[in-house]
Amino acid sequence: MTPEQVRAHLDALAKPPGSLGRLEELAVRLCGVARTLTPRTAPRRLVVFAADHGVVAEAVTPWPATITGLMLETILAGRAACSVLADCTQTDLRVVDVGTLAPPRPDGPRFRCRQVRAGTRNLAREPAMTIAEFRAAVAVGEEQASEAARAGFAVVAAGEMGIGNSTPASCLTALLTSASPDAVVGPGAGAVGPTLERKRRVVRAAVARAAERLTHDPEWAMASVGGLEIAAMAGFYRQAAAARLVIVLDGFIATAAALVAERLWPGTVEAMIAAHQSAEPGHAVALAHLGLTPFLDNWNLRLGEGTGALVLMPLLDAAAAVVSRMATLGELAGRASDGV
Amino acid sequence: MTPEQVRAHLDALAKPPGSLGRLEELAVRLCGVARTLTPRTAPRRLVVFAADHGVVAEAVTPWPATITGLMLETILAGRAACSVLADCTQTDLRVVDVGTLAPPRPDGPRFRCRQVRAGTRNLAREPAMTIAEFRAAVAVGEEQASEAARAGFAVVAAGEMGIGNSTPASCLTALLTSASPDAVVGPGAGAVGPTLERKRRVVRAAVARAAERLTHDPEWAMASVGGLEIAAMAGFYRQAAAARLVIVLDGFIATAAALVAERLWPGTVEAMIAAHQSAEPGHAVALAHLGLTPFLDNWNLRLGEGTGALVLMPLLDAAAAVVSRMATLGELAGRASDGV
Repeated sequence: MTPEQVRAHLDALAKPPGSLGRLEELAVRLCGVARTLTPRTAPRRLVVFAADHGVVAEAVTPWPATITGLMLETILAGRAACSVLADCTQTDLRVVDVGTLAPPRPDGPRFRCRQVRAGTRNLAREPAMTIAEFRAAVAVGEEQASEAARAGFAVVAAGEMGIGNSTPASCLTALLTSASPDAVVGPGAGAVGPTLERKRRVVRAAVARAAERLTHDPEWAMASVGGLEIAAMAGFYRQAAAARLVIVLDGFIATAAALVAERLWPGTVEAMIAAHQSAEPGHAVALAHLGLTPFLDNWNLRLGEGTGALVLMPLLDAAAAVVSRMATLGELAGRASDGV
Repeated sequence: MTPEQVRAHLDALAKPPGSLGRLEELAVRLCGVARTLTPRTAPRRLVVFAADHGVVAEAVTPWPATITGLMLETILAGRAACSVLADCTQTDLRVVDVGTLAPPRPDGPRFRCRQVRAGTRNLAREPAMTIAEFRAAVAVGEEQASEAARAGFAVVAAGEMGIGNSTPASCLTALLTSASPDAVVGPGAGAVGPTLERKRRVVRAAVARAAERLTHDPEWAMASVGGLEIAAMAGFYRQAAAARLVIVLDGFIATAAALVAERLWPGTVEAMIAAHQSAEPGHAVALAHLGLTPFLDNWNLRLGEGTGALVLMPLLDAAAAVVSRMATLGELAGRASDGV
């Protein structure tokens, strides 16, 4: 489905052309990604990948790393933002521990323990991951997308939980878009004042080191400044796109992972719908680099966990309903000539 | 619930303060209107009020008046934009004929025939309605809100179908906000070039006549440039607000009706949540006059039928879920000290 084909169909429906505004644009994108005028938007699943980050030792965030494990518990208890939003948007939720500092816990119906290592190394001092660790994390994400495809999910999203992860996401965004680190670093979950200034310094230095090897050794460069959950999300996108699932893209961290995926497996972005544009400054840079137009573009969401993707889910249903179920103006004209 | 009380509660939840952006603002408004931190957002009903407009004789729209009746059929057949969006947002749909040119049809489970007269008179030549007709149309709307309250609906919206109705809505908006007619008249469902110029001339002249009597005879002034479905929507809002229902406000026509309601029954606006800001230029003027902040403010919706209100419905669910079901940071701290 080209955008022109979808627009022609939308213009033939029983309404003034274009009168549903951005809901029509969403329908165009959805039909384009799903390659049909009758896209399925359910069942759907959000996979939240959790991991910890050695860089928190640099005091780049006001939150302690222990929050990652506590939030993982809170998500599974159904009391985190992503849990309540998944429930109210009819989205299946799964949590995968790709490498938190929390002790391993057994798999459950909504949980997978796939710890590659206990958090990344401190990217300010040494490479965050080896290439082997990076690939192992990517494989964790690929496994989740394959499972979702086999289980019949039509739409998927990846979310994340990882205290400190806006620092590696900022590094990856600057590294892969060539934007200035200062243009992409933002407060994340609350870095202000000296904390924000430390975060900026850390990102500048790490990106400078990684950039030297990006061309000849891209996996090393990305592993050196990345995160386990970000690598897993990239693998998730790769395999979801290969399985022809519709991917709803969340915010800044999720889009940093999309940059990784698109760099390693070009074309992955074709499966993506950008849910929103985060308040985090680097998000607009990353979306523009990927050529994606966000739909909730001034909602100032910056929580992560996949919450922005979840907020868009019901609007996907609405777009699909309009494009696939409305009468055409031709049917109306037929009715008129029938004397109804 | 004051906005400050709701914000204090939101800031205590397990997320960085403000990190859900406008979803939090929506929660603040919803809780304020519903006067609780655990607002109900279902069951909900959209009532679409349909009527015709004598002013179409002035060729102010490219669509023939017969479309009103055909669209009424299409809505009831489940194939109009509002029908499919009501279905996919779990919103009960009812259609009320307040005065179309279509022959009367019997009441049904989702239809009420309450024709006050067969369309308004041509407001360019004479008053569109008498005061008695205006009041009869208001009473039709009040009846619908009372029924919705008795049936236990928590959230309601009013939509409209009426070829030509952006002309009376423009008149009412200019009349009641004192904005220049030229600043509020837009293309509506497709007026361009000479059609738009005729519409502008008609609105300017009608508003000038009505404005002379607004202060001393407001009902006469509003009746003279109004529409039967717009009057019914105003009555619907009045009674819904009195019954403490949450009102989700649709676009330009719906907001013109809100201006009427607020003028006649001040305080009605306190029950309203503005779903979106329409592409129609007068809508921003009307919302600002009422002090309402729209949530989908750049979605460029301009279809009417209540569709913009419907698109917001699932986001109300999301806002209610966040505010009423998430864990607090205090609970997380308790968990940490428990050693979980």
